[in-house]
Amino acid sequence: MPRKRQNEDSILTKLAESSRWFSGRGAGRCVALGIGDDAALFRSKPGRETILTCDWFLEGTHFLREKHPPDAVGWKCLARAVSDVAAMGGSPRCFLLSLALPETHTDRWLDLFLGGLRQASRKFHCALAGGDTTRRKEILINVTVVGEVRTGRAVLRSGAQPGEILYVSGRLGEAELGLRIVRRSEGRASKKNPLTRKHLYPEPRLALGQWLAERGLATAMMDLSDGLSSDLSRLCTASAVGAQLEKVKIPRVQLPNAAFKPGLDPMHLALHGGDDYELLFTVPPNKAKLLPQTFRHVLLTPIGTITRQRELLVLDENGHPRQLTSRGWDPFCKKL
Amino acid sequence: MPRKRQNEDSILTKLAESSRWFSGRGAGRCVALGIGDDAALFRSKPGRETILTCDWFLEGTHFLREKHPPDAVGWKCLARAVSDVAAMGGSPRCFLLSLALPETHTDRWLDLFLGGLRQASRKFHCALAGGDTTRRKEILINVTVVGEVRTGRAVLRSGAQPGEILYVSGRLGEAELGLRIVRRSEGRASKKNPLTRKHLYPEPRLALGQWLAERGLATAMMDLSDGLSSDLSRLCTASAVGAQLEKVKIPRVQLPNAAFKPGLDPMHLALHGGDDYELLFTVPPNKAKLLPQTFRHVLLTPIGTITRQRELLVLDENGHPRQLTSRGWDPFCKKL
Repeated sequence: MPRKRQNEDSILTKLAESSRWFSGRGAGRCVALGIGDDAALFRSKPGRETILTCDWFLEGTHFLREKHPPDAVGWKCLARAVSDVAAMGGSPRCFLLSLALPETHTDRWLDLFLGGLRQASRKFHCALAGGDTTRRKEILINVTVVGEVRTGRAVLRSGAQPGEILYVSGRLGEAELGLRIVRRSEGRASKKNPLTRKHLYPEPRLALGQWLAERGLATAMMDLSDGLSSDLSRLCTASAVGAQLEKVKIPRVQLPNAAFKPGLDPMHLALHGGDDYELLFTVPPNKAKLLPQTFRHVLLTPIGTITRQRELLVLDENGHPRQLTSRGWDPFCKKL
Repeated sequence: MPRKRQNEDSILTKLAESSRWFSGRGAGRCVALGIGDDAALFRSKPGRETILTCDWFLEGTHFLREKHPPDAVGWKCLARAVSDVAAMGGSPRCFLLSLALPETHTDRWLDLFLGGLRQASRKFHCALAGGDTTRRKEILINVTVVGEVRTGRAVLRSGAQPGEILYVSGRLGEAELGLRIVRRSEGRASKKNPLTRKHLYPEPRLALGQWLAERGLATAMMDLSDGLSSDLSRLCTASAVGAQLEKVKIPRVQLPNAAFKPGLDPMHLALHGGDDYELLFTVPPNKAKLLPQTFRHVLLTPIGTITRQRELLVLDENGHPRQLTSRGWDPFCKKL
């Protein structure tokens, strides 16, 4: 019985065709061979290390088919992987897209998805270099991003020292608030609502990460993907240190009006909400004066200090210390 | 309500610990930073291009939880991505593992899976550099392999010229036969059955691919993952040529005894069976004499010629040409 075929090939063709429109400003020049062969070829610049990172983006776990606009799925699956490159102080160069789709989604949904992905690719100067497609009942996405950083200049999680100042970019908890609005919306979330924007179209802090790395200002850095309480714990574990936060200093989401559910606590959202993709980094005290209050309109806020004692404390409004428990996103405990 | 957590972190810890045992012979030296940070750091050698490839390996599509031994799942998810590096004539260096698992599979199944993955990693000198884990009802795997090849030496699909000779390594259809045995076996497939080995533990033709690329013998090359009839069509499309095969020359699986279902045709298995991970390549006539009949115990067989006319023909036993239809594996048409 002859089988209908060419489906995988036709999706690959669609990707290959649109890959010409992906990225811009010569970012594709590092891709010596793109989609259409057994593998892609990447040429790294001399004196650079290659940054490698991959991220799941799965229906039901990371997004909902009926709630999230397809172009936001396309944007965000790349943005979150690019954020890992920002967290090393590097520049993204290209990415591989693994896509599993139901046959019902290979037409309009795929076009909108690719539209959002293309916008992200251009914004981050990160060219589509290859991928793999297959059929599946659920929408499964995996993105591998390849970036570069000057050899020896990558900022790791493990470099924090006692006495250093802990900084965070932006306002925390905004994406978590956006998620809650998306979940209670009927049908697809509105793209125009500024409160959902940070959840739907996160902006990795590439320029800030590169600036901190190039100037040698940050000793340790990571991006906030799972929430401050979980991610700070990882940074401290990697650096074998502790941290003391000052609650009043933590820049938190501003609730727009009283229509929001009572009990929605901005501080809780800021401490434990995920998906902000802001940068968390440490700066030696003598370099802190070199940091502006904002970097390209993004707040930079000192929120505490690194301690020798390996525990996470939060000083409340009265200066009383409390233990900080990691309650952020953990895909092994929580579903969207 | 406090949530139980640390699950993702503990799986990452398990991966990080076992990554010390992954690979060998200094292959890990190119990984300047492995698991545990936002991303991995890879240092490429001067004068090399970086090969990038990713592959899905999904329960229900590419393997069956109840039929495939966990260590075979671990071996094969890496082997099939490494095969793309072999098909470029390159050497694998490191890989990223994206793993989604049910909580019931984070213990014994995961250990056996990592055991098989570790064996493959050592065999192919391909170090575990990073990854991403999440919880999911079904077992989802995505592997990105990073390899290297001397700049300008990668053998692409697009280099075939009319008049060149088409070669294939090994015997085709063996993996398809193995799959059929696995599907009709009760419970997990036996690892000792030599007929299922090629399906469960494929061996990418790394040494052959590198030898053909280094000597400049192959003008076009790809690996056979979806079956000769589908993959040859891709090579010919990329090279803008056609091909004429001689049926009698195609090295095919040998059926072990008459116990097999009547109607199981070795030639059908050889033409359309997937998962062989043998190499398909073209050689100019004047270089064909430089090819041995076997390379490290692997058959090298001329099976036809490249033609200017862009169609795929098979000459039958009597020299009559027939059109070859692509009937290999296409994940958008066929499930395992």
